Amino acid sequence: MKPLPEALRACIAQGVDQIDTPALVVDLDAMERNIARMAEFARKHQVLWRPHAKLHKSAEIALLLQRAGAVGACVQKTAEAEALAAGGVRDITITNQVIAHSKLLRVARLSAWLQAQGGRLALAVDSADGVQRLAEAMAQAAPRARIDVLVEIDVGQGRCGVPPGAPALALAQAVARLTQLRFAGLHAYHGRAQHLRGAAQRREAIGAAVQAARHTRDLITAAGLPVPLVTGSGTGTLVHEAASGVYGELQAGSFLFMDADYAQNEREQAQPAFEHALYVKTQVISVQGEHAVCDAGHKSHAIDSGLPRVALLPPERALHYANGGDEHGILTAQGVQARLPAIGRMLWLIPGHCDPTVNLHDALIGVRGGLETGVVERVIRVDARGALS
Amino acid sequence: MKPLPEALRACIAQGVDQIDTPALVVDLDAMERNIARMAEFARKHQVLWRPHAKLHKSAEIALLLQRAGAVGACVQKTAEAEALAAGGVRDITITNQVIAHSKLLRVARLSAWLQAQGGRLALAVDSADGVQRLAEAMAQAAPRARIDVLVEIDVGQGRCGVPPGAPALALAQAVARLTQLRFAGLHAYHGRAQHLRGAAQRREAIGAAVQAARHTRDLITAAGLPVPLVTGSGTGTLVHEAASGVYGELQAGSFLFMDADYAQNEREQAQPAFEHALYVKTQVISVQGEHAVCDAGHKSHAIDSGLPRVALLPPERALHYANGGDEHGILTAQGVQARLPAIGRMLWLIPGHCDPTVNLHDALIGVRGGLETGVVERVIRVDARGALS
Repeated sequence: MKPLPEALRACIAQGVDQIDTPALVVDLDAMERNIARMAEFARKHQVLWRPHAKLHKSAEIALLLQRAGAVGACVQKTAEAEALAAGGVRDITITNQVIAHSKLLRVARLSAWLQAQGGRLALAVDSADGVQRLAEAMAQAAPRARIDVLVEIDVGQGRCGVPPGAPALALAQAVARLTQLRFAGLHAYHGRAQHLRGAAQRREAIGAAVQAARHTRDLITAAGLPVPLVTGSGTGTLVHEAASGVYGELQAGSFLFMDADYAQNEREQAQPAFEHALYVKTQVISVQGEHAVCDAGHKSHAIDSGLPRVALLPPERALHYANGGDEHGILTAQGVQARLPAIGRMLWLIPGHCDPTVNLHDALIGVRGGLETGVVERVIRVDARGALS
Repeated sequence: MKPLPEALRACIAQGVDQIDTPALVVDLDAMERNIARMAEFARKHQVLWRPHAKLHKSAEIALLLQRAGAVGACVQKTAEAEALAAGGVRDITITNQVIAHSKLLRVARLSAWLQAQGGRLALAVDSADGVQRLAEAMAQAAPRARIDVLVEIDVGQGRCGVPPGAPALALAQAVARLTQLRFAGLHAYHGRAQHLRGAAQRREAIGAAVQAARHTRDLITAAGLPVPLVTGSGTGTLVHEAASGVYGELQAGSFLFMDADYAQNEREQAQPAFEHALYVKTQVISVQGEHAVCDAGHKSHAIDSGLPRVALLPPERALHYANGGDEHGILTAQGVQARLPAIGRMLWLIPGHCDPTVNLHDALIGVRGGLETGVVERVIRVDARGALS
């Protein structure tokens, strides 16, 4: 792995005021509290947790989660799996379809390598074509290895996944017929439900997903094929999957950092009190008339789920962030006593959506002791940044 | 500089069908035609051109543009300037405010280094505070160097820049009083006008911008301070700045690749016929019911200016791309004879906005001979990817 840039290494042990902007900063105390809450939640519900690494893309964080009790990591891409494996993660599930032969050869090789290390790789499938392609690549590139295969069912997301019921049974049987493929269960993720604002809406959506997953599991089991696991869930709905008695593993990842979008969900009583832990530090570079301009635009944070919020200000001094383009944010006074920040002032933004925000940065700067007077404890590499393939 | 990943190097001299997905692909023939059109346009209007490298973030492309007649490169960030300088670019303008002392020390050092190579660095300012900070950093880090300083005026963008007229004169005079700072002219960019759909709207907006820039230039000149240059403009409005007799330099960058958003502008007659040259190659990984799913989501392309369009299909077989999240796109039949693409099918997307799309990728894959039967000629490094500071 390439060394971290000198400028990033140089900020270690410095105060937060020394962090150059714009920068992606993790409040390590808040993150660790979130991890402890999630570990406690999973323990209480006797459910496995395999946090999705498409959020943090970091082997260091995946291993930290494992030390707290997570069974491994989820990823979306072959290249993410490779990056985590290179960083020491040994139990990885690709919760996505892989179709290209060149990628499936990489999947096969990684599967064999992880198996040799005592680990394992799992992959989702949602077509007979996909199953056949995977089997061919395994035979070609890893003839002595086995790979875990999850049949993905569509429980409301409307994206990948066969319909629940008979189509899933047929696919599970197709997997089970192939000697190098081990049918490892069902992948059933309802992404849309995560961001339904009302608690009742989310309960209803996941109620239907649980029913579909249970029905499918029972159908496959009745056909003589054991279903070792149903896996899925996200931070917005995990209370429901955890209590379902059907889902054995939670893939929720965003609890680690939270984001401005999740903060808009009506909270469930049973939901652990996850805190914001990820911020973009920015500096005011211009003040003109009734607005100030900061140096963080949508090359610093993703805006697919809305714009960032300015953090750490009391309501009466709140500032409003508006999109200023790729490299700028426009700040205006919002609170009744708010004043425009001066040139040079440092501010903290809570990104609208953490996953694609992390993907814009090569490193996360980990701060201990809070954002106002803390110290940079370590710099965490985003190993799988840009790992698209 | 770090070497390109093996997987990227491996695709050189291979057919386009061998490019792994998702990938950012440049049609080199189309890009070179766009460069030739821009060079011809600038020659005809006797105006300098300094294409904005915030688009391509590549020293190789900046040098290619210089060989075609560009005078140098624009950037938005100090780290972008450093990346281009490391790649051989010697004449760079930072069209933005730099405020942090640590960054201004880097600006000062880079300025001295470029000057020693026979080049130069220019920086925009829009406050007396910014001027003072720059002067201090120059005195500290580059006491024998000079730096070109452009006074930024707000000609309608509503972001950075002092108001035209007296405030700009005061700032120009403040610059001129400092021995290490050379007043190099006015930076006057109207970003919002680039995306006004109607040709008449753009003409009107730039008419006002030209008037403001001319008035400010004349005011400063009348005060005894020469204004060597007015610089600005973008791909959406360059016909107006070029014909203005006020703007001496065009910063337009997007003409190189074009994007789906610019394609929606009503075209000016005088506008060169720039073509799309940047694509995201993607593969279909799932087909379910009435939709297919491809492997390019908003971690592969920016969606701040709208979703990508599926290219290279005749209208009757058109496919519609809908957002499927970070790693997926949802494709549905749009044309009257359109059929869902099969699993494994390769497709080409035209991104909504090129600049932040390029910033998601480590490399541009350059194809010669067209996207359907062409060959990968070279892989162009995105040197300043993630260069935020």
